[in-house]
Amino acid sequence: MIELFDSPSSGNAYKCRLLMHKLGLPYTRTVVDIDTGQTRTPDFLARNPNGRVPLLRLPDGTYIAESNAILCWLAKGTPWLPDDRLEFAQAMQWMFFEQYSHEPNIATVRYWLTHGIEITPLRAQLIDMKRPQGVAALGVMEGHLAGRDFFVGSRPTVADIALYAYTHVAEEGGFALAPFPNVRAWLARMAADARHIPITD
Amino acid sequence: MIELFDSPSSGNAYKCRLLMHKLGLPYTRTVVDIDTGQTRTPDFLARNPNGRVPLLRLPDGTYIAESNAILCWLAKGTPWLPDDRLEFAQAMQWMFFEQYSHEPNIATVRYWLTHGIEITPLRAQLIDMKRPQGVAALGVMEGHLAGRDFFVGSRPTVADIALYAYTHVAEEGGFALAPFPNVRAWLARMAADARHIPITD
Repeated sequence: MIELFDSPSSGNAYKCRLLMHKLGLPYTRTVVDIDTGQTRTPDFLARNPNGRVPLLRLPDGTYIAESNAILCWLAKGTPWLPDDRLEFAQAMQWMFFEQYSHEPNIATVRYWLTHGIEITPLRAQLIDMKRPQGVAALGVMEGHLAGRDFFVGSRPTVADIALYAYTHVAEEGGFALAPFPNVRAWLARMAADARHIPITD
Repeated sequence: MIELFDSPSSGNAYKCRLLMHKLGLPYTRTVVDIDTGQTRTPDFLARNPNGRVPLLRLPDGTYIAESNAILCWLAKGTPWLPDDRLEFAQAMQWMFFEQYSHEPNIATVRYWLTHGIEITPLRAQLIDMKRPQGVAALGVMEGHLAGRDFFVGSRPTVADIALYAYTHVAEEGGFALAPFPNVRAWLARMAADARHIPITD
């Protein structure tokens, strides 16, 4: 059976659980506590030398790291990963946007504020830098969603799963969603799916 | 014809030029000066609301942003993008690693040091933070390349293109490659390809 190494509050891990639930894929779950350094032990580094969760262990013992790559593996051959050349590239575009322009700003600030991380003077300056960058990322999403139900094509894809994870908890990091009505409508559309599960599941 | 909006010293833009050259794909090139804010003008933001190069304009006027998504579009249907489910996911894993753990450290420090960006006290602290993270990313690559010629499978893929771009100029950012012999051998393998072009082309 597939084994997911994850962390309960990680949006990156939630992406994997959410798509596995939607696909009806059974898996076991091993919680790794990122706050106490469990992703940097020799045992864990032997599984993922980059020392991060989520991490997927396939039944043959192969590991796949990087949340969005795990989504690609899970979705390959399903409608969640478009096969059309342009739609495939567009789904990848939004996933790379998520990891470069969205997650390092919105998820990192949320992590610092909700995990009792000490806000040193350096972190305070970084928050001042990350906050407008996170708001800008939400603005890019808001503009793209004007007149669109989902990020790519006419149905949800891995791009929506990737972006949903940290957008729907953005306010935990102090990123107000009120100014982004298209984003809020899209979040509601995603959560209305019969096979949706919350991040706390 | 395909049009690439790029910036000469950008490794992200070089990825696209390198793969297009390897594929023998003709394209026109429009240089956008990131140092003078040309990626943030209303005209450019209408093309890419996230305000970044590289950006690919397809013949029908569609734009694709994010360097690694552009590689995916270019490579789709060719051996540069593995179709096998696991190898495809592994290629994606290394591309997301590149954008999350490699580029923000190695490329950002190189950019600051080579573009005459003022090293404010905050940037100096960020360099102190990014330097060990960049070295760690090189270490992850070094370990993976032990006994391997390329990152995924037995031939170069989009993952190698993505990682080559900023690794081969890492020393311009003060990241010594001497401690990473597997990485240096892989760089030499990549550059030995008959259809290789340098970043300056």
